[in-house]
This record gives sequence, structure tokens and C-alpha cells, in this order.
Amino acid sequence: MPKAVAGPEIERLIQLLAKLPGLGPRSARRAALHLIKKREQLMTPLTEALGTARDRITVCGICGNIDSQNPCTVCTDPKRDSSVIVVVADVADLWALERANAVNARYHVLGGTLSPLDGIGPQDLSIDALVSRAHEPAVKEVILALNATVDGQTTAHYITDLLHNANVTVTRLAHGVPVGGELDYLDEGTLSAAIRQRTPI
Amino acid sequence: MPKAVAGPEIERLIQLLAKLPGLGPRSARRAALHLIKKREQLMTPLTEALGTARDRITVCGICGNIDSQNPCTVCTDPKRDSSVIVVVADVADLWALERANAVNARYHVLGGTLSPLDGIGPQDLSIDALVSRAHEPAVKEVILALNATVDGQTTAHYITDLLHNANVTVTRLAHGVPVGGELDYLDEGTLSAAIRQRTPI
Ligand SMILES: [Zn+2]
Ligand SMILES: [Zn+2]
Repeated sequence: MPKAVAGPEIERLIQLLAKLPGLGPRSARRAALHLIKKREQLMTPLTEALGTARDRITVCGICGNIDSQNPCTVCTDPKRDSSVIVVVADVADLWALERANAVNARYHVLGGTLSPLDGIGPQDLSIDALVSRAHEPAVKEVILALNATVDGQTTAHYITDLLHNANVTVTRLAHGVPVGGELDYLDEGTLSAAIRQRTPI
Repeated sequence: MPKAVAGPEIERLIQLLAKLPGLGPRSARRAALHLIKKREQLMTPLTEALGTARDRITVCGICGNIDSQNPCTVCTDPKRDSSVIVVVADVADLWALERANAVNARYHVLGGTLSPLDGIGPQDLSIDALVSRAHEPAVKEVILALNATVDGQTTAHYITDLLHNANVTVTRLAHGVPVGGELDYLDEGTLSAAIRQRTPI
């Protein structure tokens, strides 16, 4: 812990900012200073936006998306193809696919991928709920939009086996996804192509 | 503006986070998601810390430091050598010198450097107040801890001229500071050495 120069309030703010992904201790200090200098233009609005988000953001009971309404905006959108469920590991992946305008369907957020080394098993993910949704008569296709990593592909195979008795086509993203790559870092064109060229498993 | 997927509250939060130095639009989304997932451990404390900082942080009327008290912690510390004033362009530089434990004196924050190209003249900086402080009988030395850039050195020469009639020794940081470098990015050893080897102008 460096020497405190500016009182405990600022040190506390710096410590908390440093916990954000992408900000280390030094950039957290710069961010804190920037906030203090832009008190009216940035610090006050950010404080209010955080408070509003904290009070209103919830997890969608259907798909696991994060939104201020439950069911979420995606699940209640009547213009989406409700016969297709896109399975993602994380909300960040859902956001990435939406930014790419890659698909206009429903989602299902697993909350991670199977990872024996990290002790993450099927009971830690939202897999039962997915199987249940896949058995609804309206659902015709489940797209497994998972990372092209060992854990992602292990999870894809596990889910494919579970959906064997459901009346759905199970597809995965095309091999446009770089091996070892993570969805959230891909450009939008690659994501769109990977959705278009999805192949049956 | 990418397609909104998660309601206006989250989009607003992402927009504001993206204005922090060090966070772009993509890392702001990751930061927002991290905050939402860590609602109790991080989002609530950060909201409160921002609110507290916003309400309590002020600018020191003597030196220009940012603190929750005025005069600031540095100016009211009886253990500091009040015969030495370290002149810095920005509060970030003050913090950097303090982190390095480079000097145990008072500071004076100019609020920038002279920059004819950017239209920043003496009237835009806290220079009159510095000259006034330098004429106090207790003050014996003014250390110009300014960036080794053209603007920083122009400012140093301008201040040196103004202090000609004051009964103080004007020094600058040793040339340990890399040419073109900015104080806030230097390691602590370099900053300490630069303070130790300061030379008369
Ligand atoms: Zn939903
Ligand atoms: Zn002060």
C-alpha cells in the first residue's frame, strides 16, 4: 500500500477502482483524479448511474441475461425468432453477439463452462434449465456459441449429449472462431460469419 | 453507439465508465459487467466511495492539492520542512513524488504548464500565489519538479525569472528524468534520485 497523500476517501476510491478489470493501481489513481477534476460532468453522473444500476439491474429468470427488467428485453422481444436458442457461457458473450447483430433469437447464459480443473461441474451451470427450454415445442434449434477452448468444446459436447432426446437441431459456431480465442475479443465481422456458417454437430 | 442489449441503465453506466482514462468502450463494458456481478462486494462500495469523495473532496487553498480537508494534509503536517516548496504541474505529479517518498516538504500545484500552442498563459496557472508564497520569510528553496518537456522547461524558466527578487534558491530536478518523459510514469527510484540530485538553476 503506497503512502496515503490525499485522505482516506480518495485512497478508498482508488482501491475500489483498481479492482475493475482493465485498471491497475496506477491507472486507478489517474481515473480517481480525473473523476475528482470532473466532479459535475462525470463523478456525479457516474455515482448516480452506479446507484441506479445497483438498485434496478437483475438477472433474467429465463435466459440469465442481465437487465433492468425480468424477463429481460431479449426474452420479451416479440420480433425475435423464439425457435432458436443461442447458448453462451457468459453475459459478455451475449453482448458481443448482440453488438455484432449476429443473430436475432433468444439466448441462454450458462454462467461459465465445464472445467474439471477448476472444479466447475454441470451442477454449477444453468444446464438443467437449458435442457428444459430445449424441450419446449416451439424450440427447433440450439446454437452452441461457446469459446473455442478445451473447456468450451467439452461443454458443447456435454450439452449435445444431453439434448439427444430433444426435438432440436444442435449447431455450433463455424470454425471462423480462432482456436483458443474468446468470443468477447472478436471483431463483429468474424462473429457474424461464425453465426452464418454454423454447422450441425 | 452499439445496439443496446441490456436496458438504458447499463448503457448509461458503460458510457460513463468509458470516459475514464485507461478504459475504452470495450473495457468499459467488461468493467460494467464485473460491477454488476459483484454488486455487494464492489458496486455498492464504489457507489458509496464516489458519493463520499464527491461530497468531501476539495482543493487546498494553499497548495492546490486535492484532499478532504482544506488546508490539505500536506500543508498542515507539522513534520514537513516548510522552508521548501516543490512546484508541480498537476496533482498527479504531487502524488507520484509522495509515493516515491522523494521529499518531505510542501508543494505548489500550478494546474498545468505554460503552453502557447494550447493558449495556456501565466494567468491560467497558479503562479501569482506561488510567487507570493516564495516571498514568505520561512521559505528558502523552491524546487521546480516539472516535466522535462518543452512546456515544462519553458514554465521552469518563466518561474525562475519571476522569483529573481525572492530570497530563495530555485532548483530543478536532476537530469535523471528522461528527456520528454512525464513524472507520473516514472519509477520511484528514478524520482527519488532526481530529487536528491537537484541542481541550482
Ligand atoms: Zn432473458
Ligand atoms: Zn495544501
